[in-house]
Amino acid sequence: MQNYWWVNHKKTVRQEVEGQYLWSPKTNANGRRNQSYENMREASPGDLVLSYAFGSVGWVGRVTEFAITAPKPEEFRNAGAYWDHEGWLLPVYWTPLTPPVRPKAMIGTLGPLLPKKHAPIAPDTGNGNQNVYLANIGPEAFQEIIASAALDQEALQRGGGNRLTFDVVTEQLNDVAQRWIESDAGLDSTEKETLVRARRGQGVFRKNVEAREVACRLTGITNPALLIASHIKPWRICKTAKERLDGANGLLLTPDADHLFDRGFISFSEGGEVIVSPRVPPDDLRRLGFDQAMQQRGGMAEAPAIWNAGSFDASQAGYLGYHRQQVFIA
Amino acid sequence: MQNYWWVNHKKTVRQEVEGQYLWSPKTNANGRRNQSYENMREASPGDLVLSYAFGSVGWVGRVTEFAITAPKPEEFRNAGAYWDHEGWLLPVYWTPLTPPVRPKAMIGTLGPLLPKKHAPIAPDTGNGNQNVYLANIGPEAFQEIIASAALDQEALQRGGGNRLTFDVVTEQLNDVAQRWIESDAGLDSTEKETLVRARRGQGVFRKNVEAREVACRLTGITNPALLIASHIKPWRICKTAKERLDGANGLLLTPDADHLFDRGFISFSEGGEVIVSPRVPPDDLRRLGFDQAMQQRGGMAEAPAIWNAGSFDASQAGYLGYHRQQVFIA
Repeated sequence: MQNYWWVNHKKTVRQEVEGQYLWSPKTNANGRRNQSYENMREASPGDLVLSYAFGSVGWVGRVTEFAITAPKPEEFRNAGAYWDHEGWLLPVYWTPLTPPVRPKAMIGTLGPLLPKKHAPIAPDTGNGNQNVYLANIGPEAFQEIIASAALDQEALQRGGGNRLTFDVVTEQLNDVAQRWIESDAGLDSTEKETLVRARRGQGVFRKNVEAREVACRLTGITNPALLIASHIKPWRICKTAKERLDGANGLLLTPDADHLFDRGFISFSEGGEVIVSPRVPPDDLRRLGFDQAMQQRGGMAEAPAIWNAGSFDASQAGYLGYHRQQVFIA
Repeated sequence: MQNYWWVNHKKTVRQEVEGQYLWSPKTNANGRRNQSYENMREASPGDLVLSYAFGSVGWVGRVTEFAITAPKPEEFRNAGAYWDHEGWLLPVYWTPLTPPVRPKAMIGTLGPLLPKKHAPIAPDTGNGNQNVYLANIGPEAFQEIIASAALDQEALQRGGGNRLTFDVVTEQLNDVAQRWIESDAGLDSTEKETLVRARRGQGVFRKNVEAREVACRLTGITNPALLIASHIKPWRICKTAKERLDGANGLLLTPDADHLFDRGFISFSEGGEVIVSPRVPPDDLRRLGFDQAMQQRGGMAEAPAIWNAGSFDASQAGYLGYHRQQVFIA
């Protein structure tokens, strides 16, 4: 289902529009949950977003990827210094709305169309809501805004305009992390090589995983030529050498399973059940061959499909908790 | 089925034993087929090899990977200068045979056990056969040689002794090719970036492939989040920018299909039929979900499974011919 969003950029409008993305922290500064940050991971490719800043909606965006855990793109180059700035990065392709629309001037008709909870501007006064970053506004409010200005619908829908794909973002973060390792004066050359090889699931990390795991948790395959040693907490986001090499931070997965797991399309519950994101069409899962696994293990053929992948020990459970919270696209 | 091999190293014994591999050209210098080079791609993980050089068998090896198209490992660093030295690299884990065994001294009992065709030493005189590199000798001749000396069977069977895995070899070749691109004074920075991004199937290369291919040839999936733009002739082996970016040199494949294709476990016939290597256990294929695809497309559930993947145009056919000859593990 297509969703319609409204973002209150505040001061970052220029970077976010030029950079073709949205970025938010994951929680409030005090660590509390914030629904408008949670909305970042609910946005899906094809959703549309109104860009609001300084009293005007000047851009309309189309979401091009699911949210990715990452620092702000302008901080990628120095990402190692900003790991604590980890947030949700949402790639969005922006198109100008001409002339910009001032919602406050039309609050009489717009107000009743806005949601009662978590509204991005006050439905009565039209004043901005400081506590809201990304708000779900529904199609009527969205149409009301864009109806009074010109928008190049074709440019908005056209694919390929956004370079910031999942692969590009994650590879840039991997490259930055690798450069930080290679320039770390506290590591000798063997330690550096070991950490860098873990990036591709090779060497010491793979051995550490193989000491715990014997088969792919989804397919049961044990043939090493068909298995990837996949990080649970992604290598690009790990903060220490221990996390990058810890056998408890890995699973042996077939390439399809590794891809789905790394992109956050599947995860595992505390009880060892496979959780499948509703964003993956059941027909695609079937074509990937997972309906068979689901049936064999007693799960359902329709998403959200859940079946049991066996038990995990306490150290694996910690990493899996991170994966559910920070990688899985719920 | 386990095979028993005999290699005539000639002068390269030290590099090959220390480096944990065998390496041969793909054909004779005149371009003719040589069965003892073809044997390189028939060797499988778990096969055992006798190392013969200077009149003695001094080592016994266990094959740890299928053969990979690559220059000699000692040339990896300068691989760009050696692309014409492309041959078969076979990772082998070597264990000493103590004391070394001289086959000529036992040719009376050994000779009748050697194969009549392509024997590695003459069955009557025990003199080395210059034209043979890797020979299939069968279990009896193998046992006859090792029976008269001490061999640490446990060390031979132990896994993990060989760093030269498929992933390590191909990543090293990829890294070398990338450094050659980055140091190529004939390319500007945009061209370099475009070529490097093609390594991961991104950017211009992916767009070029998407202009021709709409779905995974094996699963029918069209969801871009589940598809990889996979090179037919591997990026690491391409010799020109044109090959690295050519849309005809790519297919859109799901991660499992990409993995099987890149490792040479599947390929496509001229008529568009999927060819599955007999080295992939049918039960593993089933667990990867390909039995379903096979059934839907009228193929057989037992390997070698063949079903039709649609037609390819002439420019794709050229790259697919390379893949069948140089990548596919027959």
